[in-house]
Amino acid sequence: MSAATTTSEETGQYARTPRTTPTRYKDRASWERAEIHAILDTAWVCHLGFVVAGAPVVLPTIFARVDDRLYVHGSTGSRPLRGAGTDQGLPVCLTVTQVDGLVLTKSAFNHSVNFRSVVAHGIAHQVTDPDELTLALNALVDHAVPGRSADCRPANPKELAKTAVIRLVLDEVSAKTRADGADDDPEDADLPHWSGVVPSATVYGAPVPHPGSTAPLPGYLTDFQPGGAPC
Amino acid sequence: MSAATTTSEETGQYARTPRTTPTRYKDRASWERAEIHAILDTAWVCHLGFVVAGAPVVLPTIFARVDDRLYVHGSTGSRPLRGAGTDQGLPVCLTVTQVDGLVLTKSAFNHSVNFRSVVAHGIAHQVTDPDELTLALNALVDHAVPGRSADCRPANPKELAKTAVIRLVLDEVSAKTRADGADDDPEDADLPHWSGVVPSATVYGAPVPHPGSTAPLPGYLTDFQPGGAPC
Repeated sequence: MSAATTTSEETGQYARTPRTTPTRYKDRASWERAEIHAILDTAWVCHLGFVVAGAPVVLPTIFARVDDRLYVHGSTGSRPLRGAGTDQGLPVCLTVTQVDGLVLTKSAFNHSVNFRSVVAHGIAHQVTDPDELTLALNALVDHAVPGRSADCRPANPKELAKTAVIRLVLDEVSAKTRADGADDDPEDADLPHWSGVVPSATVYGAPVPHPGSTAPLPGYLTDFQPGGAPC
Repeated sequence: MSAATTTSEETGQYARTPRTTPTRYKDRASWERAEIHAILDTAWVCHLGFVVAGAPVVLPTIFARVDDRLYVHGSTGSRPLRGAGTDQGLPVCLTVTQVDGLVLTKSAFNHSVNFRSVVAHGIAHQVTDPDELTLALNALVDHAVPGRSADCRPANPKELAKTAVIRLVLDEVSAKTRADGADDDPEDADLPHWSGVVPSATVYGAPVPHPGSTAPLPGYLTDFQPGGAPC
């Protein structure tokens, strides 16, 4: 397995680079390893960006984090997976966004959003080591539903042959967050408009069993609310 | 205003191109104008992809749709906004994703996600016409909170000078959706694992007024649940 050793483990911080340093709202940015991991671990959907013939492509997909590595999977025939299978790898940008609320201010200009996001840049490579592949596939299932990989049939050789996994080592990565109230300008104080925050969250409903499913609801699906309680 | 006239208005379909035609799960793809607009209109966060020095960048931001145009705003100094201000415009990919549920199957391989997504490709241009700029800025506020632009102070000249808006005409765009149960293989039928769907949705909590806000809660924030009722 290609274990990624990064200095971030020792310093607790990812290195700042020009493209992970914002030009505006600098106080919203963070390179703190623990904070970045926490944001990644409350999400399981990401948006993966790559370049095809000079133009950007952004696709939603699921991801998993294992230490300082992110994994994304797909069909062996899909464009990003094939691109990452080359020696030079595939330049990607993997972005995770959690929306926590709408911020309404008395002026249109100051309206904002409460959110937590992570943007990771780097070169993705295809996972070829069988042990790392197994680890990554289990992580992809468990990242969304912790405990699930031990409670389903693992991929058989035919299924494995159809599945490719790419690895992006967390190295050039930053978080950006806003968790604050309405920031009204003093000169807008007397305007008659409501201002404040409308909290938002992702919630999960009661699991709906498939007609062919006779097993009782597993413990890991009871009160399933990854990412914390709803607002 | 640069009114976009597209053939999609007459045919009800956006044209299929190589990059909006998937190689797998073709039955999940759609080019239907009404369906694409409906997905866009239940969301207000998108992921905008563009290319900087050959590498992809994917940033979360808010967007609005007006007819066949998507609008994104940002600081006049930000990289994508400056890029779109040039004559040749900025190649972008704008992706909107709504997650509707986790699909758990008896095999790891068949696990899936219920979702609705739209991926739009094209060249973004900066909006320079004052009327279109006003229309776009109002749409950006109203797309998230319908009715809000009429109930807040519009941008003043100083604020307008800091704000840039880019336009992407919907032309090369497709939707991809999955709204189905667990698709277990027949040979997995007797496995003892639970299979089914865990529905998910974005919900909005009770609005929290800013201490400086004395106005009553406006009607458009009562039972505010854009995108429909929670699961």
